[in-house]
Amino acid sequence: MSQGSAFVQSVQCALRSKFTVLHTSATHSAYPRHLSDANSCRTSQNKSFALKARRRPLSIAYVNAQLTMSTTTGSAQPTTVAENGTAVFRKLQDPEQELLNSTSVFLFDCDGVIWLGDKLIAGVPETLDYLRSIGKRCFFVTNNSTKSRAGYVKKFTSLGLKISPEEIFSSSFAAAAYLESKNFKATGKKVYIIGEVGIEEELDLLGIPHIGGPADKDKQPRMGPGDKLEVDPMVGAVVVGFDRYFNYYKAQYANVCIRELKAEFIATNTDAVTHLTDAQEWAGNGTMVGAIRGCTQVEPTVVGKPSPLMIDYLANKFHIPKSEICVVGDRLDTDVLFGKRNGTRAVLCLSGVTTKERLFSQDEVIPDFYCESIADFRPR
Amino acid sequence: MSQGSAFVQSVQCALRSKFTVLHTSATHSAYPRHLSDANSCRTSQNKSFALKARRRPLSIAYVNAQLTMSTTTGSAQPTTVAENGTAVFRKLQDPEQELLNSTSVFLFDCDGVIWLGDKLIAGVPETLDYLRSIGKRCFFVTNNSTKSRAGYVKKFTSLGLKISPEEIFSSSFAAAAYLESKNFKATGKKVYIIGEVGIEEELDLLGIPHIGGPADKDKQPRMGPGDKLEVDPMVGAVVVGFDRYFNYYKAQYANVCIRELKAEFIATNTDAVTHLTDAQEWAGNGTMVGAIRGCTQVEPTVVGKPSPLMIDYLANKFHIPKSEICVVGDRLDTDVLFGKRNGTRAVLCLSGVTTKERLFSQDEVIPDFYCESIADFRPR
Repeated sequence: MSQGSAFVQSVQCALRSKFTVLHTSATHSAYPRHLSDANSCRTSQNKSFALKARRRPLSIAYVNAQLTMSTTTGSAQPTTVAENGTAVFRKLQDPEQELLNSTSVFLFDCDGVIWLGDKLIAGVPETLDYLRSIGKRCFFVTNNSTKSRAGYVKKFTSLGLKISPEEIFSSSFAAAAYLESKNFKATGKKVYIIGEVGIEEELDLLGIPHIGGPADKDKQPRMGPGDKLEVDPMVGAVVVGFDRYFNYYKAQYANVCIRELKAEFIATNTDAVTHLTDAQEWAGNGTMVGAIRGCTQVEPTVVGKPSPLMIDYLANKFHIPKSEICVVGDRLDTDVLFGKRNGTRAVLCLSGVTTKERLFSQDEVIPDFYCESIADFRPR
Repeated sequence: MSQGSAFVQSVQCALRSKFTVLHTSATHSAYPRHLSDANSCRTSQNKSFALKARRRPLSIAYVNAQLTMSTTTGSAQPTTVAENGTAVFRKLQDPEQELLNSTSVFLFDCDGVIWLGDKLIAGVPETLDYLRSIGKRCFFVTNNSTKSRAGYVKKFTSLGLKISPEEIFSSSFAAAAYLESKNFKATGKKVYIIGEVGIEEELDLLGIPHIGGPADKDKQPRMGPGDKLEVDPMVGAVVVGFDRYFNYYKAQYANVCIRELKAEFIATNTDAVTHLTDAQEWAGNGTMVGAIRGCTQVEPTVVGKPSPLMIDYLANKFHIPKSEICVVGDRLDTDVLFGKRNGTRAVLCLSGVTTKERLFSQDEVIPDFYCESIADFRPR
């Protein structure tokens, strides 16, 4: 089965269950519910409610689930629970017993796990070679939509890693594949892009027509008496990805398409911040998505992490239970949540943005294991 | 008492009750709760819950409140309730008995009530003259932050209406007055502005230093390896108003100020759409506020409609009960809600964007009366 058609099946399946990120989260009641709408509801009132809601399931259902999972996956060390009822975080000690024996597919986040900015993290090539040598499948999942899969292959190559486009899941690809799953091309309609070249390149590969994107970089609508922004009446979807040239023209174009043409609003992700450079946290795609949500009052369909699309796709493609998939990332609220919310195992690497102190000071998102870096996956 | 100091009192009072729009809405349980968070929670799940919540109080507490209000204000026609339990909308028939005798202060929305785009609505000058001749105080409240009060005086003058700056409440003024109420100037800090000249002019009048605004129109941060956007460490507040030159530089500047400097995030309003021109609905300040909320994950303090600031200010300044204030507007979800949520009377004018069909097809926001235009306020 080709990658495209398997993806079609899995997203069609997701569509039948009226998939959106927010819907999905609500159906996974084993995990603290408020994490799902962290972006949309941040009033102190809601937070206070959420905190109350969180404390309870953690010490009952959630820790029970952890214990059960440890048993079924053959872990040597069951999750321990401190006297105050909170889970104790487990460092990966025996990779073969604890992780490798029970995992078929690894989904690696890139920045903070494979590389840091433009530098490869020590031990990564050897670890990937080892995992492949023992028959594990490795994929690389990134919410960064500014590059296409082809763009990412170049980045991997520049760091000395040989990765094929089929092993890469960027949110630009996810957006294109989602549209393919809905037979968007057959409608004869176009996509309006807020975003960069990555989304354009992925839509081109599928032959889906598009407008907007980098071409609208310097545009400004006429806003004098009687003026209006005319939009192409054939726009059937608006894809919103990270766009460092976001402007009012693009916001109004998307606004008219979504409000008047009833175009679908698709977000590559809703990450609040991104790491354009290592020197600072930069406003992420939550900025662009928040803007379009703010004017249209429509919730987007989110295709990147932590939506289940990629995990559904892989489980479907390889016919394996999700419990044999392991998400590996450096962020609790995207990577680890992505795995835990969607029924996979999850490992937090301390090689990126999350410190050990941060991990231990929270009990909202609990990985199955943490480690210093993926170099710890190789048996000692 | 000067306008500034009275405002200070009223907003300090609001601050003592830990004012935010979302808090406020939650304390007014007589009105449909979900309207308050229309911008922040739009999942179909929440909507479904909200709809259920709405139906119940409407036919019990809410309609009872309507009946009580009709009695206490000496209305000739009590609110009638249809057989299905929904309120029947009341057209203003006898302005003196139904409205004028019991109202001391009128708060008029501008666009759709006083003018439509650049044209005065018929009968407005005569109505304002009449209301003043019988001792009513008239104020003009607009969420449009692109002009200062001085800018609005020019617009009124160009239409032949003589209005003083003290009679105008623009959200640009509200933002400046809110900062004054917090003694912001005494901190020695600055305001970063996303917005246009109206906010700058109002801050200048109060001597509050500011940066950003129109000056950052064409800026783009350097985003190469190791680059970061340096911000002025003295920024203590970010004011976000409508900005047709919004760009990524401004978003990242605000993001760093709010995240790293812990600057307060103040929104002039969160209106989804605005009427820049009559030909189309344009993406409103909900766009800019949504963007900053999306990257910072912080909820703003909202100073424009439907927040209670202006109503608290007037009730305090004139020492009158809020029941003697009447909000007059052409929008249900901003103007009428603004009044009903904050304890005043509210009249919907059909001279703007809301049609009679729309009014009658909903039972979410119920004005005390509706009329064709404010010309109906003069006795026949």
